[in-house]
Amino acid sequence: MAGTTIRVVARIVARKEKTDQVRDILAGLVDPTRSETGCISYELLQNKADPADFTFVEEWKDDAAIDAHLRTQHIIQALVKLPDLIAAAPDIRRYTVVR
Amino acid sequence: MAGTTIRVVARIVARKEKTDQVRDILAGLVDPTRSETGCISYELLQNKADPADFTFVEEWKDDAAIDAHLRTQHIIQALVKLPDLIAAAPDIRRYTVVR
Repeated sequence: MAGTTIRVVARIVARKEKTDQVRDILAGLVDPTRSETGCISYELLQNKADPADFTFVEEWKDDAAIDAHLRTQHIIQALVKLPDLIAAAPDIRRYTVVR
Repeated sequence: MAGTTIRVVARIVARKEKTDQVRDILAGLVDPTRSETGCISYELLQNKADPADFTFVEEWKDDAAIDAHLRTQHIIQALVKLPDLIAAAPDIRRYTVVR
């Protein structure tokens, strides 16, 4: 619904040799995140031209739900593992729907 | 459906003073694109923290449908107008769904 929910696009780029390990960590976030209050959709994508380039496309009820998501144990545990495996800091952006 | 469709995340960053003009051009692409064969979903997002930062999140039946989309008159006409209004070349990436 335009204007009523928050979308997130979150890009995580793995070090090339760590691609499979990062993929497993990120894929492991999908089920627990979809169970969270306020999560409407949460999908993990992998770039066809560059397999080290992952992106979550997400829809949330509101900003409070996203803030709570970032404090969950599954996210915190992933954030502890990722720094040695990724090529840059995660790029996480919040959006509204224009149409 | 995981693995069966192609997702596109396309980022277009306007020059700050051209934000409204870029928004209108991009919003004008939504209806004709949703009418295209092979377009499953096509949404225009605007960054909450940086209104000049626009992103399309798209789902397509296959790569051929995206290739055809990029040859439509509405896309070609937008691409003619955008160069003087945007801060960088559009960043268009194709993805498969991991899960």
